[in-house]
Amino acid sequence: MSRLLRPGATVEMAHGGGGLATTRLVREIFARHFANPILAQGHDAARIEAPSGRLVMTTDAHVVSPLEFPGGDIGSLAVHGTINDVAMGGAQPIALSAAFIIEEGFPLETLDRIAQSMGRAARDAGVPIVTGDTKVVERGHGDGVYIATTGIGVVPEGVTIAPENIAPGMAILVSGTLGDHGVAILSRRQGLEFSTTIASDSAALHRMVADMVAAVPDIAVLRDPTRGGLSATLNELAEAAGVTMTLDEAAIPVRPEVAGACELLGLDPMHIANEGKLVCICPADRAQDVLDVMRSHPEGRDAALIGTVGDRAAPGTPGLLRMTTLIGGTRVVDWLAGEPLPRIC
Amino acid sequence: MSRLLRPGATVEMAHGGGGLATTRLVREIFARHFANPILAQGHDAARIEAPSGRLVMTTDAHVVSPLEFPGGDIGSLAVHGTINDVAMGGAQPIALSAAFIIEEGFPLETLDRIAQSMGRAARDAGVPIVTGDTKVVERGHGDGVYIATTGIGVVPEGVTIAPENIAPGMAILVSGTLGDHGVAILSRRQGLEFSTTIASDSAALHRMVADMVAAVPDIAVLRDPTRGGLSATLNELAEAAGVTMTLDEAAIPVRPEVAGACELLGLDPMHIANEGKLVCICPADRAQDVLDVMRSHPEGRDAALIGTVGDRAAPGTPGLLRMTTLIGGTRVVDWLAGEPLPRIC
Repeated sequence: MSRLLRPGATVEMAHGGGGLATTRLVREIFARHFANPILAQGHDAARIEAPSGRLVMTTDAHVVSPLEFPGGDIGSLAVHGTINDVAMGGAQPIALSAAFIIEEGFPLETLDRIAQSMGRAARDAGVPIVTGDTKVVERGHGDGVYIATTGIGVVPEGVTIAPENIAPGMAILVSGTLGDHGVAILSRRQGLEFSTTIASDSAALHRMVADMVAAVPDIAVLRDPTRGGLSATLNELAEAAGVTMTLDEAAIPVRPEVAGACELLGLDPMHIANEGKLVCICPADRAQDVLDVMRSHPEGRDAALIGTVGDRAAPGTPGLLRMTTLIGGTRVVDWLAGEPLPRIC
Repeated sequence: MSRLLRPGATVEMAHGGGGLATTRLVREIFARHFANPILAQGHDAARIEAPSGRLVMTTDAHVVSPLEFPGGDIGSLAVHGTINDVAMGGAQPIALSAAFIIEEGFPLETLDRIAQSMGRAARDAGVPIVTGDTKVVERGHGDGVYIATTGIGVVPEGVTIAPENIAPGMAILVSGTLGDHGVAILSRRQGLEFSTTIASDSAALHRMVADMVAAVPDIAVLRDPTRGGLSATLNELAEAAGVTMTLDEAAIPVRPEVAGACELLGLDPMHIANEGKLVCICPADRAQDVLDVMRSHPEGRDAALIGTVGDRAAPGTPGLLRMTTLIGGTRVVDWLAGEPLPRIC
């Protein structure tokens, strides 16, 4: 039985001091739930036997509120989000690190639950959390817990995923329904009740990506449409590649309950964050192959072809991203200046 | 001229939304100050050509208060701290990532100054910041800015630094004076004035470490005595290796002004955090070689032999770390349960 996890026990400033209290917290919560041979080395710097190849490195600070929501929590979200960022480089993740900034007074029981969920997400994904750090800040200088995760991965030989590869005529695919994560968070935050509970799509996509790049090595680019949603992701890619893009609204998968919630709340699913979806741009004649691979994975079940890359256009040209609407018109899909939902991830 | 850095401008929630405002903030502040070819790729996941070898990975959340202090700021501290953690594995750092959690209302000018200092520290150390993330939290849920940095490095062939290597009779060395960082922070925080300004020792130690492990490959272990100070570091190592250790108080270098401030404040320099110092344990007959290498670097100018590894002892035995005092007695040097100075790094 843990001596730390007494009923009602909370995180104190001493847990961040680097002394005995920190050591106990790390052993009884993080080391227990994250258990793996590399972390067990117990060095500040974890040693990893990396296969040879090009490395990728990615980092994310997670400040989602609330900390727990339908479909996940800040711990599983941090693991999935960082794995996905590594995977979007076409790489296979090999290790994660996690740094915690905890607010004084945070219930140790909640921290334990989040660490457990985080450890489970990492184990399920087959990517160990190899090193970490814990800091504690005074009450009123945090919000429960923030988690910064970093991932490293190895890019297989021959894979060169980059916006520069995008060319006119290519196909634009998404791996599933849009808006689930953002609407799940918002519903929870606002105490909204829908007839169906809307759950976050938070999921690790690296296994699906491994099969996609193995089947179609000439995939141009992969991106996860998180903050800012699909519109921010595609606007950024169109800008970086200097092309126009046209989407077909009727083809974009959105769950009816998410569409309903968006209508109620005056939101556009195109702008809402996703945490278990990817956008793939590939040569048009390989689109069906990519769709087949995605649909063979549970996380790509609802994959769809949603648009086409158009002509070259000078970066900075307004209206690079357009959509053919349900009623047959055309509208520009702009990115929002801000995010309608702060602290979504 | 930056459109962002208008006088009085502050960080708003929209800067964390992932849309256009985030892109502007990242371009005009972080990308400008961190400029390097890998970051310029502009992918979420940075690609790094890693030399072959074993990798190390380390992470730190930085929550130091105040954000700016004599001898550095949270930005340079984050770079130095993470480089040092990589170096303590005997590795040479090859890349850093940085995740920012910024409080709404934080002056953009201060953020710019910190990012500039961070970029300079990374350039001076020759270790690029290759990827990053920016989140914004509401007023009252942060404290200006927190920075989580992660470092990766490569361990040279033949280097196997680990506490298990520690053996009876080995020498215990430190690379310089103790307590400078902690006392610099505390003085600033409490508005104390001393006749001499006490500056943080914040510095990157990887170049000195490279020369040390090249000269003496059988160095047993390297550690940076940060939070919890030298006493926490040596207690942890004694515990991990299952040995006793004896220090010679007269040999431990402490600046007179730091000793004076500690006396005034009732603190023990053994418990105070350092940010540019290392502890090295090596075979006794190589101690002079290691000292010579350290002293040939400005950051090891005051290096000293401070003690000896004693007999084997079961882990958990109380009093593993002892000190011969100035007056010839012996006392146990325990680690503190907490940290006398919260948010020191």
